[in-house]
Amino acid sequence: MSKVRIDNAISIDGFTAGPDQSMDHPLGVRGHDIMQWQIQSGVMQAASTATEIPPGTEGSELVVYEHFQNIGAYIMGRNMFGGGPGDWPTDPAWDGWWGTNPPYHTPVFVLTNHPREALTLEGGNVFHFVTEGPEAALELARQAAGDRDIRIAGGASTVSQYLQLGVVDELQLHIAPVLLGSGERPFDGVDPTSLGFTIDRVIRGSQATHIRYAVTRSGG
Amino acid sequence: MSKVRIDNAISIDGFTAGPDQSMDHPLGVRGHDIMQWQIQSGVMQAASTATEIPPGTEGSELVVYEHFQNIGAYIMGRNMFGGGPGDWPTDPAWDGWWGTNPPYHTPVFVLTNHPREALTLEGGNVFHFVTEGPEAALELARQAAGDRDIRIAGGASTVSQYLQLGVVDELQLHIAPVLLGSGERPFDGVDPTSLGFTIDRVIRGSQATHIRYAVTRSGG
Repeated sequence: MSKVRIDNAISIDGFTAGPDQSMDHPLGVRGHDIMQWQIQSGVMQAASTATEIPPGTEGSELVVYEHFQNIGAYIMGRNMFGGGPGDWPTDPAWDGWWGTNPPYHTPVFVLTNHPREALTLEGGNVFHFVTEGPEAALELARQAAGDRDIRIAGGASTVSQYLQLGVVDELQLHIAPVLLGSGERPFDGVDPTSLGFTIDRVIRGSQATHIRYAVTRSGG
Repeated sequence: MSKVRIDNAISIDGFTAGPDQSMDHPLGVRGHDIMQWQIQSGVMQAASTATEIPPGTEGSELVVYEHFQNIGAYIMGRNMFGGGPGDWPTDPAWDGWWGTNPPYHTPVFVLTNHPREALTLEGGNVFHFVTEGPEAALELARQAAGDRDIRIAGGASTVSQYLQLGVVDELQLHIAPVLLGSGERPFDGVDPTSLGFTIDRVIRGSQATHIRYAVTRSGG
């Protein structure tokens, strides 16, 4: 069964990105502080292309590997893809933050109000720009993913929209021991009564505690 | 060594109490949802008077027992003690939410702008009302606690004040799998650069994940 998964690093005060996001700080000022568990794992590159998880992998490394396993499509917001607000820059074109071979290796559906032709990069990375809204993007992602899962990559407002739609099956939070003080909160605007969370698994890493929740939708 | 400890239940979206606190809802509307791990443990009464933790106690029950161990004094805000804002009611007097034998069994220092004589209830519960501010209350609590620890009981704004003062040694968050959507957030107003958190211990309960942090103060 294909699942819709969210997997977000979050500070103790509930921010998934710092303030003042910019070219220099795509995760906002100090936003990288909540990603140290992933950065310092040293397995990001290997995990993003691994077809299976090496036996004996545990802790935060296991979480990094799992993050990429069985994903058939990603959905992200315009701000996460980058290139500033408004019309797409053309000279030079904005092709994302990740260089010529981004770590997705599947179709990626980018929510935007500004139409753009699909962008094909190396390693199976194809970015589709969807102007018909989050439900249309999810339907396209389901078709692309088949039996595999769909990951809502971010940012906070995109995560919030999909939680609010009641379509998320699994939520994992990587709770990093830092305060950001301000920034983006993925649960703002989410109706609390529309969602039920059950603790599914807890993994303790040295730089984050990984709590996985199953999401039970009361609204169907 | 006497430590200053904070021990707070918190929702996934970072609230330690729900909105619209009142006599009927001292933790705010739906605020009890984040306390289910404690309520359903069934050991609150036993834990609040136990001189030691029964061998073999684990999970959320262990956390409930520890909550009360080695505490020599509590500090709480006026709103947590209750009785509404402004002058103290006299007819009838407001003696707290907890009946004739509250679960503290030590001196409790209540931050308030409104002077009041100390209130002595059963079981060693003595409430002192401190009008000279949080640092004065901490000094009084240190004298009362001696070698034992001081717990900042709440609410959110009192927790925020003591974090901001840089005097907290240990923070435990009981992360309950619920969204409250609005209410009180203890980290609002806390300067993130003044505090360092290190993950000290993680205990998984069925209704909350208990993450304990050591707090390293850069400011002294």
